[in-house]
Amino acid sequence: MKEFELIKRLIPGLATNKETVVGAGDDCAVLDVGIAEKLLLFKTDAVVEGVHFTRDAGWTRVGRKALSRALSDIAAMAGEPISALVTLGLPSGFDFKNVEEIYQGIHERAALFDVSISGGETVRSTQGLFISISIIGWAPRSRLLLRKNMRRADALFVTGELGGSLTGKHLDFIARIEEAKWLAEHFEIHALMDVSDGLAGDLQRLMEASGLGIELLAEAIPVSKEAKIAARRGGPSALQRALSDGEDFELLFTVSASKAVELLDAWKERFPGLKLSCIGKVVAEKGIRILSKKRGPVELDCDGYDHFQ
Amino acid sequence: MKEFELIKRLIPGLATNKETVVGAGDDCAVLDVGIAEKLLLFKTDAVVEGVHFTRDAGWTRVGRKALSRALSDIAAMAGEPISALVTLGLPSGFDFKNVEEIYQGIHERAALFDVSISGGETVRSTQGLFISISIIGWAPRSRLLLRKNMRRADALFVTGELGGSLTGKHLDFIARIEEAKWLAEHFEIHALMDVSDGLAGDLQRLMEASGLGIELLAEAIPVSKEAKIAARRGGPSALQRALSDGEDFELLFTVSASKAVELLDAWKERFPGLKLSCIGKVVAEKGIRILSKKRGPVELDCDGYDHFQ
Repeated sequence: MKEFELIKRLIPGLATNKETVVGAGDDCAVLDVGIAEKLLLFKTDAVVEGVHFTRDAGWTRVGRKALSRALSDIAAMAGEPISALVTLGLPSGFDFKNVEEIYQGIHERAALFDVSISGGETVRSTQGLFISISIIGWAPRSRLLLRKNMRRADALFVTGELGGSLTGKHLDFIARIEEAKWLAEHFEIHALMDVSDGLAGDLQRLMEASGLGIELLAEAIPVSKEAKIAARRGGPSALQRALSDGEDFELLFTVSASKAVELLDAWKERFPGLKLSCIGKVVAEKGIRILSKKRGPVELDCDGYDHFQ
Repeated sequence: MKEFELIKRLIPGLATNKETVVGAGDDCAVLDVGIAEKLLLFKTDAVVEGVHFTRDAGWTRVGRKALSRALSDIAAMAGEPISALVTLGLPSGFDFKNVEEIYQGIHERAALFDVSISGGETVRSTQGLFISISIIGWAPRSRLLLRKNMRRADALFVTGELGGSLTGKHLDFIARIEEAKWLAEHFEIHALMDVSDGLAGDLQRLMEASGLGIELLAEAIPVSKEAKIAARRGGPSALQRALSDGEDFELLFTVSASKAVELLDAWKERFPGLKLSCIGKVVAEKGIRILSKKRGPVELDCDGYDHFQ
């Protein structure tokens, strides 16, 4: 959580200008560049060896992950990606063949969404490889889905299944660009973000941005098969893993409760292969509480951890 | 030079799309985002501890350098910067006070050109600090100053003085945003870039992009006081240092020879405190030759080194 603390302290002092609609603190920065119907999204995201991947993943998958994470930030604004730049930090003696494989992975994901890779640079890295991706995209001016737009009594939804991403999904996922665009076009979504730091941590962000609280239904949280298998081997429960593993890159959003059923029905028709779960609701009282049949309400801390264990 | 080799092999395979006017290979990527009179510039640039700076520089200066390098790339397209994102790679245990100092330096330079710092992220770095800056800006659609636009018989100019940047200028320089904008507005500049890898290396880039050659006048090259002082202590000559030290962040550009005198006069009036030197001309025959009164023409290699020593 250290990063969030650091960022929180820095944000109030960041330089702004007349183009800046949203600076730091949401999934992307949003800039008004004078186009009537659109706003420019601007984002950077890095993966670091030993932190976000290890070499045994294979370099193509590392490339996929690097671009997909940035694409997921564009998805989190229901945006359309345009172009990305790639900064490679290469340890000395790094094989060019591996660089080609990294680019192969990047290109695989770029091709899915017609994103250009408009250059970048390579720098020496004193230890370990890193890939920093900068990306720009468009968001519809009339449907800017900021975290702070969450409203009291909204229904809270999440796509896919959560937890256990480290077994492979964190490398191979496809950013939910299409799904987010469809959502923004067909429903009046209030707040949208991607689940990157674990459901509990990301809900904390929604909460802080909106000043509202969240009530989760434990039984409604979509726990992945991978989280269940891992839990059977010991350690945290499957639900705990779904709450805190992170790197799910699913969409987390809120919509008026009155639209919840209609949305679920339309979703099933449009994306029959992808689960959509209503996992709780937005409440006035701050904090994240999780309700289960067995235990009643339990307060979650920002890691989704201690209080629940 | 390894980076250039790597990039050269990667560029032909990079993904492109209909928005991409210029992908990799110039100072910035150039994107057509549908605004009549403007094109979007997009660039990323990183500084790495132990490569681009050492800790004894002081963190404010490191922050200055990080943003100024990216601003210099915008200047190299005669562009106007809009917004930047900051990716900080922090070694474990890095003091928050130092992060604040880095941001102070970044903000000093952002304020000079009304650039917003719209966020970014911090990642763990396994060893040494790095700062990667992503920047966007505008370039006038009608005056896109690409490297390949250099023409035969153009006069070649450089601003300021070259060499010895490591004594301090590489940390404290101010990107030539104003000067480049003025040049583009008042003269029909053909090719423009910033001198970041040393005059000889950057001329090589101009040459490769245009398919033309360059003839330099040794006596016309503006050698900095710092390069002269260093040369007196031994090692490479002052001229050699001006050719190959790098990190000068001056503007290098070409214009029709018939405009050279007019430009020099207008420059002196507009920027009386900043030297402008005509250092040579563009020729049809490929290669970079340097002419001096003492030695006659000598071929320069891409490092500006071996053949000249």
